[in-house]
Amino acid sequence: MEMLRVLEENWVETLGPVGVVDWTNEEGARFAMSMMGSAVWSGEVEEERARRLREVGRAAGGRVARTVGEELERIGVGRAGEAGVVEASWETGVKMAAHFELHIEQGPHLVGAGEKIGVVEGAQAYRWYEVEFHGRDCHTGTTSFPHRADALLAAAKAIVDVRALAEELGNGALASVGIIEAKPGSVNTVPGFVSMSLDLRCPDEKILDELEKRVMESLRSAAGYSGAGGRSVQTNIKETFRSTAVRFQREAVDCVEAAARHVLESAGASQGGKTLMRRMSSGAGHDSVFASKRCPTAMIFVPCKDGVSHHPEEWCEKDDCAMGASVLIQALLRYDRTRG
Amino acid sequence: MEMLRVLEENWVETLGPVGVVDWTNEEGARFAMSMMGSAVWSGEVEEERARRLREVGRAAGGRVARTVGEELERIGVGRAGEAGVVEASWETGVKMAAHFELHIEQGPHLVGAGEKIGVVEGAQAYRWYEVEFHGRDCHTGTTSFPHRADALLAAAKAIVDVRALAEELGNGALASVGIIEAKPGSVNTVPGFVSMSLDLRCPDEKILDELEKRVMESLRSAAGYSGAGGRSVQTNIKETFRSTAVRFQREAVDCVEAAARHVLESAGASQGGKTLMRRMSSGAGHDSVFASKRCPTAMIFVPCKDGVSHHPEEWCEKDDCAMGASVLIQALLRYDRTRG
Repeated sequence: MEMLRVLEENWVETLGPVGVVDWTNEEGARFAMSMMGSAVWSGEVEEERARRLREVGRAAGGRVARTVGEELERIGVGRAGEAGVVEASWETGVKMAAHFELHIEQGPHLVGAGEKIGVVEGAQAYRWYEVEFHGRDCHTGTTSFPHRADALLAAAKAIVDVRALAEELGNGALASVGIIEAKPGSVNTVPGFVSMSLDLRCPDEKILDELEKRVMESLRSAAGYSGAGGRSVQTNIKETFRSTAVRFQREAVDCVEAAARHVLESAGASQGGKTLMRRMSSGAGHDSVFASKRCPTAMIFVPCKDGVSHHPEEWCEKDDCAMGASVLIQALLRYDRTRG
Repeated sequence: MEMLRVLEENWVETLGPVGVVDWTNEEGARFAMSMMGSAVWSGEVEEERARRLREVGRAAGGRVARTVGEELERIGVGRAGEAGVVEASWETGVKMAAHFELHIEQGPHLVGAGEKIGVVEGAQAYRWYEVEFHGRDCHTGTTSFPHRADALLAAAKAIVDVRALAEELGNGALASVGIIEAKPGSVNTVPGFVSMSLDLRCPDEKILDELEKRVMESLRSAAGYSGAGGRSVQTNIKETFRSTAVRFQREAVDCVEAAARHVLESAGASQGGKTLMRRMSSGAGHDSVFASKRCPTAMIFVPCKDGVSHHPEEWCEKDDCAMGASVLIQALLRYDRTRG
C-alpha cells in the first residue's frame, strides 16, 4: 500500500491499474492447502473444494473442526454475486495483466554470498510421499538379530541412502525426511512399524523423475535390509502431493532483472565489477506459482538472516526490505511500459 | 498354588516350607520401575523410594497421578508392623532359602529349535541411554545439503552404525533403538532435533563395556556426519538405566537342569539322542535377578509362539506350560533334598 502511495505522490501515471493482492492462506498451516487463494483464483482448485476443507488439529482442543467456508462466513466475507463481492476467478472475476511478488529467500544462498537480490525464474518441482515400513515388534533383550524384522533399522537405512542418492544425482536434486514415527515406542521393544514423510525436489522435472525412480528402488531394497540374516520388512509408499516445476514468463523475469540491476547499481551494490544479484529458482511454493498459470509472473527474493524461515528467528534487514521494494516497483513500471 | 496342592495331595514332605511369591509390579508399566517388589525385598531399592514413585501418563487423562504408596493404601495393603503384615525385606521379613521362577522365553530361540525347556543360567547385562542430536531446522526446499545440520540424518546414520557394531562384536551383543522423536515434525522442514533411546545388552559384562565404548565413539562421529560438506550436528548422550550381568547360583541351576532332563526324558522329548533343552541366558529382566542377590536362584524358560511377548498374540502351548510346571516342582524338590 505504501508503494501505491509513492506512485501517487510522484504523479506516476501507468497504462494499466496497479493493485495489491492479499492472497488467502498461502501457508496452509491451519487449513492444510498451501497457496489456497491463488489456487482457487487460477482455477487449479475448485472454490467449493477449498471451502469444504476442515482445519487441522482442533479435535484435541475439544472444539469441532471448522471449514474454510464456515470461517469465511463467520468473519463476514461474502460470496460472489453479493454486493461488492467479486468472484475469486481469473476468468470471471479479478483479472491481472501481470503478477510480481517480493519474498525473503527462506534459504541461505543470497545471504551466504553477500548478494542483495534474487531474480526468480521459476519454482522447482516437488513431490511428497508417505513411506511405511512394516516389520514385527519384538523384545530388544530376547530377540537376536537374525530373528528381527526391525522397521526402524530399515527406515534409518532408507534415510541415509535416499540422501546419498540425491547428492549423487546433483543438479539441485534434494531429498529430505521431516517426519518419522516408530511404534510401539518403548525402550525395550524393536519397532515393528515406522511411518515417515519424504520430500523430493528439483528445478528440473526430468532429473526429479530420475531421482524418484532411484529412490523408489532404494526404498524397496532398504526394506529388505535388516542386517545380517534378519527377516525382511515390507514397505508401502504413497504419493501425497505433487507440484510440477514452474518457469515464470521471460518478459516478466527480464523486467525484474533490469530493475534489480538498475537499483543495485544506483546503490553501489557490486563487488569486483559484479552486481550483487543472481538468477535463481525458488525452492518453496509461492502464490506466483499459480498466478503464473494465468498471467506473466516473476518474483524477487531478498536475503534473510542465516536463511532461517518459519521460525521466531526469521529476519530481513530493513535496507534489504527497502531494496526489494524498489526492485518490485521498478519491475512493474517497466512491465507496464512494455504494454504501450 | 495348584502345585502346592499337588505336593499336599501326594503327601510330599519337604525339609523347608514351600511358598508362592506374587511379586508386585514386575513389569513397571504403570509405575515405571520394573521388578519393583523383588528390588525392595532384596534391599537394592529402598521401600520409601518405591512408595514415592508416581504413575506415568495420567496427567493427560485429567486425574492427578498417584504414587505407589497412595495406591497401596487405597487397596488396603498395610505397612510392616500392622497386624498380619510382614516387612518386605530379605533381612527382617520374609526369608527365602532358594528362589525358582518359571517364565516364557519371550524370544524365538527355543521355539525355533523345537526345544522344550531353557535352563536359565543368568540374565544378561543391559544399559539404557537417551541420545539427543542437535542440528538446525531448515526448509527442505530452499536449503541445499551443504547448508544443513540434519539431526534426523545423523540419527539414522547412528542407528545403522550401532547395529553394525554389535553384529561385528558378536558374542550375543545386542543394540536396539525403540523410541525416536524428530522435531519440529513437518514434511517440509529438515528436523533440527532428534531424541532416541538406545538399549545395549550382552551376557558378558566385559563385551558390553567394549560395545559401549565403540558405540559412544560412533555416535559422536555419526553426529559429525551430515553428508557432503553439511554443517555438523551435536550429540548429547545420557545413561538412564544400568543392570549388571547376573549369574544364578550353580547349585540352583544344576537342580533345574537335572529336573529338566528327567522330565523331558520321561516324556520322550528328545531328537537324535539329544534332549530338547538348552542352557541359556535371559535377555530380559526378571524378579530372579534381584532374588539371586540374596539366595540361590534359577529360572526355567518354556517356548512361546514366534517368540512374541508383551503383545495380544503372546501364547504358550498348554503342554509346554505343563512341562515347565513339572520342571519347576521337581527342581525345588531336588534343591530341598540338598539341604538335608
